[in-house]
Amino acid sequence: MYLKPIAFVVGLLVALSGGLMLIPAACDLLLSRQEALLFFRDACSTVLAGGTCALLTRPGAFRLDPRQILVLANLAWMTLAVFAALPFTSVGHMTFSDAFFETMSGITTTGSTVMSDLQDVDSGLLLWRSMLQWIGGIGFIVIAVAILPLIRVGGMRLFQSESSHWSDNKCLPRSGSIAKATVLVYLLLSVLCALGYFLAGMSVFDAVNHAMTTLSTGGYSTGDASMAGFSNSWIYWNGTAFMLLGSLPFILFVRAGNRVSHLLRDSQVQAFLGLMGVLWIGMTLWLTFTENKDFFSTFTEVAFNTTSVVTTTGYALGDYSRWGPMPAMVFFFLMLVGGCSGSTAGGIKIFRLQIAMQLLSRQLKQACHPRAFIVHRYNGEEVTADILRSLIAFCFFYSLLVALIAVLLSGMGLDTVTSLTAALTAVSNIGPGLGDIVGPAGNFSSFPDVGKWLLSMGMLMGRLEIITVLVLLTPAFWKN
Amino acid sequence: MYLKPIAFVVGLLVALSGGLMLIPAACDLLLSRQEALLFFRDACSTVLAGGTCALLTRPGAFRLDPRQILVLANLAWMTLAVFAALPFTSVGHMTFSDAFFETMSGITTTGSTVMSDLQDVDSGLLLWRSMLQWIGGIGFIVIAVAILPLIRVGGMRLFQSESSHWSDNKCLPRSGSIAKATVLVYLLLSVLCALGYFLAGMSVFDAVNHAMTTLSTGGYSTGDASMAGFSNSWIYWNGTAFMLLGSLPFILFVRAGNRVSHLLRDSQVQAFLGLMGVLWIGMTLWLTFTENKDFFSTFTEVAFNTTSVVTTTGYALGDYSRWGPMPAMVFFFLMLVGGCSGSTAGGIKIFRLQIAMQLLSRQLKQACHPRAFIVHRYNGEEVTADILRSLIAFCFFYSLLVALIAVLLSGMGLDTVTSLTAALTAVSNIGPGLGDIVGPAGNFSSFPDVGKWLLSMGMLMGRLEIITVLVLLTPAFWKN
Repeated sequence: MYLKPIAFVVGLLVALSGGLMLIPAACDLLLSRQEALLFFRDACSTVLAGGTCALLTRPGAFRLDPRQILVLANLAWMTLAVFAALPFTSVGHMTFSDAFFETMSGITTTGSTVMSDLQDVDSGLLLWRSMLQWIGGIGFIVIAVAILPLIRVGGMRLFQSESSHWSDNKCLPRSGSIAKATVLVYLLLSVLCALGYFLAGMSVFDAVNHAMTTLSTGGYSTGDASMAGFSNSWIYWNGTAFMLLGSLPFILFVRAGNRVSHLLRDSQVQAFLGLMGVLWIGMTLWLTFTENKDFFSTFTEVAFNTTSVVTTTGYALGDYSRWGPMPAMVFFFLMLVGGCSGSTAGGIKIFRLQIAMQLLSRQLKQACHPRAFIVHRYNGEEVTADILRSLIAFCFFYSLLVALIAVLLSGMGLDTVTSLTAALTAVSNIGPGLGDIVGPAGNFSSFPDVGKWLLSMGMLMGRLEIITVLVLLTPAFWKN
Repeated sequence: MYLKPIAFVVGLLVALSGGLMLIPAACDLLLSRQEALLFFRDACSTVLAGGTCALLTRPGAFRLDPRQILVLANLAWMTLAVFAALPFTSVGHMTFSDAFFETMSGITTTGSTVMSDLQDVDSGLLLWRSMLQWIGGIGFIVIAVAILPLIRVGGMRLFQSESSHWSDNKCLPRSGSIAKATVLVYLLLSVLCALGYFLAGMSVFDAVNHAMTTLSTGGYSTGDASMAGFSNSWIYWNGTAFMLLGSLPFILFVRAGNRVSHLLRDSQVQAFLGLMGVLWIGMTLWLTFTENKDFFSTFTEVAFNTTSVVTTTGYALGDYSRWGPMPAMVFFFLMLVGGCSGSTAGGIKIFRLQIAMQLLSRQLKQACHPRAFIVHRYNGEEVTADILRSLIAFCFFYSLLVALIAVLLSGMGLDTVTSLTAALTAVSNIGPGLGDIVGPAGNFSSFPDVGKWLLSMGMLMGRLEIITVLVLLTPAFWKN
């Protein structure tokens, strides 16, 4: 395989990420903090490294074939995580294991953290941390919208399991312009979200940071208390709304334009919003009755927390582990669900569960009408055997990966709930798990280093929809 | 629907089960215990009730159509559980909730128990308890071998998800004789198992009881310590061997006759035995190194315990929850696996996992050779879209059922691990879960009554491969 053009693109991306480090440098400069210098130094070395690599490998004219794009996607994510981790080691005085974990958790929009005492952390570093999630979010959407369909059209059936499968048949020639439109939508929503937070009472700094981590369903915050630090319902509802928006298929925003009805006619969006509605109301009623809480404040809290878990954001508003065994169990299963395909959210994704649900009711119908011929459609398209195959392969490998990570973590002496939910939260790109260590009130800093690397890999595989990474590990991929 | 012939068959089965109660009555008579009278009374009333029902509904000549057979399968299992519970209330002085739970756990070969201080329990009742598992085991195999294929041939695609799907194309006209041969194999293996236990040092009573609960992968024992009460490697290995035999597809015993090689050529058998081998050796090495135990005694213990969990038997040989976090986590995932289809074992079943695994490697191959046309075969037969559909539907509903039961149990105040593993152990028909209450050293007696009924339903649905029960709950089934 010809690796030069891959190295060129990776180099460019690294240089670009170095350029972005100037933003937190500027922030620290404004606050006249001397950490600005460290950021500047990291930015320079990153730009230098990336630029050199790009210059040395600059091809004349090039086209990437599908296999090269796959290698690129993996390599870019890994390399960026290494360079973007630099400020955490220099400004944040972290070990490289911790810094890499924090960065990977950021760019995969997971949101698990090893940092505590955030009030004492340099503002530039907090901004950089939020920026990583924001960049990771748009990065994944662009991959899902513009690159993955190209690979599929190139004859590769790899991305059958991919988000873009359902929607993009007619947009392929325009994938470049769609990518641009998507980026614009992402920017616009980010600005609106920040504005919402600001008007609801956040400082400019907090508003910008939280807007970036809300829309990307990442979940990093600027304080240890996460969202519980702001006792303001407007802020919570602004967060809930933009977490939901971040979990919708972004391609639909582009398509629907200003016709909201278009967006709501999508099966996946309907199921997702319906699920959220049922959860909000059901769980609020349960807590109101069993814990004797006030309905409206509970509703705000429940809506924010369930949305945060299902959309795989991972903000916490109070420690929901303390709500009792039933909500904990519900949250455990919600961790599996995730948002819509083609969004910033992780997890199994709504459309896979919908197809499984359709198949179940189809089986029951068939049992009652044995001779009926039932065509299986999803969102107007026929669900072929190929789609079913990729669905099974995805879900099976998802389970296998979670099981493997959970078993290895428990081998390091962690208890059952911690190992299991840490594995789930990493592969689903959520953030917090359940239990004292990885729960919303806890922190991954006490995790063993090997465990952090393991979870970092889990996050990356979860983010790239698993098979993208797995295929690189097969010998056949590298032959001829 | 014409319910009379269904009532007739159910009546006959109830009368038959009443007749079987005379066996524990005779056992108590031999030991000159007065509980014999209670058994005799229960037997009489059961025979009377069943006989009356059969006489009143006796049809001239009848054929059951597929829908009727479905109703019959559900109704028979439920009714038998009610009548077979009588001795537990009369001899065992249990509440009806407890008695029904114990009986359902018995006839579904689950093996969860509410009874303790087994040394003080009437011998006849212990024998009845073991008999329930033995009868449940052969009952399910006969359904899988003889009845389910008939339903499928009747045009009903309901049992696509069923065990018999893979093997029976050519045997249908002979399904009666195959059922007979299967029963004979079951009897023969039971006798051999009892003989093995006896020669290894068990009393006749213990040998007979354990033989019945070993081959049926049920797991009831005659003492509180379960198998740990016998400190004898021969007994453990006899148990391990016959649990394994009980988890193989019984139809293959009939087909293979005395050619063992035939049996070993089956993909499912190969995968199952391979999995067990890897587990035995891997877990023994882990425990030998981390806990500094003796290799051979650990190997015996590990082989027995992992086999007991994977085959969904549920005997305990020492409390494996105490082996540390890693084995506990491994056992948690093993609970999902189960034995081969068409055996007495429960769980998701090996062949479903094999197909998923095949699909995964197929996806990877396809990614490297985009234009290759890969036919997917399992055990020599093509895996069609219909089979994939039923596989997804089964796994999805299995997960949904476990999630629902787990959430409801946690709503009764039980902790996460207890609720989750209790739900898993019931739907997979295993027996013990993890944690202090439902773990191998625990007991379901402290469970809330509602929880017991919930788990009983879970066991029944798990045993009848879920969709058999679910279809009866759809309105369309009862129309016209």
